[in-house]
Amino acid sequence: MPGTLYVVSAPSGAGKTSLVNALVEQDPAVSLSVSHTTRAPRPGEQDGVNYHFVEKAQFQGQVAQGDFLEHAEVFGNYYGTSRSAVQALLDQGQDVILEIDWQGARQVRALMPGCVSVFILPPSREELRRRLTQRGQDDEAVIDGRMAEAVSEMSHYDEYDYLLVNDDFDRTLADLQAIFTAQRFRLARQQPLLQGTLDNLLS
Amino acid sequence: MPGTLYVVSAPSGAGKTSLVNALVEQDPAVSLSVSHTTRAPRPGEQDGVNYHFVEKAQFQGQVAQGDFLEHAEVFGNYYGTSRSAVQALLDQGQDVILEIDWQGARQVRALMPGCVSVFILPPSREELRRRLTQRGQDDEAVIDGRMAEAVSEMSHYDEYDYLLVNDDFDRTLADLQAIFTAQRFRLARQQPLLQGTLDNLLS
Repeated sequence: MPGTLYVVSAPSGAGKTSLVNALVEQDPAVSLSVSHTTRAPRPGEQDGVNYHFVEKAQFQGQVAQGDFLEHAEVFGNYYGTSRSAVQALLDQGQDVILEIDWQGARQVRALMPGCVSVFILPPSREELRRRLTQRGQDDEAVIDGRMAEAVSEMSHYDEYDYLLVNDDFDRTLADLQAIFTAQRFRLARQQPLLQGTLDNLLS
Repeated sequence: MPGTLYVVSAPSGAGKTSLVNALVEQDPAVSLSVSHTTRAPRPGEQDGVNYHFVEKAQFQGQVAQGDFLEHAEVFGNYYGTSRSAVQALLDQGQDVILEIDWQGARQVRALMPGCVSVFILPPSREELRRRLTQRGQDDEAVIDGRMAEAVSEMSHYDEYDYLLVNDDFDRTLADLQAIFTAQRFRLARQQPLLQGTLDNLLS
């Protein structure tokens, strides 16, 4: 019985990564997709855990073969989500989360129309600025740039199936879990799982 | 912000009424629709609580005015769900549950295409027969008749959005609650609620 593919997007500072990591930790039926990238590993990063680190030629070969659900170039490095790796997890019955931006989300929706997409917002502009500032001792112009980027990402919130405001971590995690739990009881997911029960009941 | 209309169906013996009552008790944003009927109140039944008890002429007048989302005749008595009563609750932001059979569900889906429908199954044919037997000292033919009715109702399970098996009351209640919780984070429900937050974030 195949799992469900989830696309989760948010601006930096919304708490998306912490929420997704907590969900994967508490729900054994949820996996995080590991992206491919051509950038060099940073200290502590493990191949196959943080990313699949590959050469540019290999990445471009996979693009040519149509093996990426989505891919993008950022500062000269390529990033992408392998369709075959995601499909292998789904076929095992795992729900799979892609943490990607609105542009990647559009590519995935076009290729996997059954995916479920979730957008996470910070509670306010003031709180967002605070979170983007706390990350370091950056000057105003750098923070303004991050805010502009966040607003640009957030302007696509209405392309998503679900909308969460991360004002309280535990409550937002519970709400995100409810979305994943409810989806498992959709007819299309239950019907193949319950075939034996249905045969017994309707015989 | 309008609530969501839910249609919940199940054969007798699946535990639907206990589940729905427990949900209404634990979730203040969920209400049960009170049906109209032309049958006489039974001892202990209160007008406006168990049913709206009305005369046949009034009922037929409401049918003529198109005020019923669904209605049916059972053993010479009429039963129906008032559209205006349901809409008043939805307009207050309440989720509203209609406990009706597959035929009523079809009528409601046609009139309220945004409704969400849930079918609840018992765990097995043997357990269902046991539950239908425990209700009294009926002879085999009566129980066979109830089983046939249950199988007929269950044969429509695949017309519903969600499918639950009530094998463990507390777990099934939690799963039902997850369906109601998740629905509240759908874009169409969140967008009007969050207008202030969105204006602040995107300004």
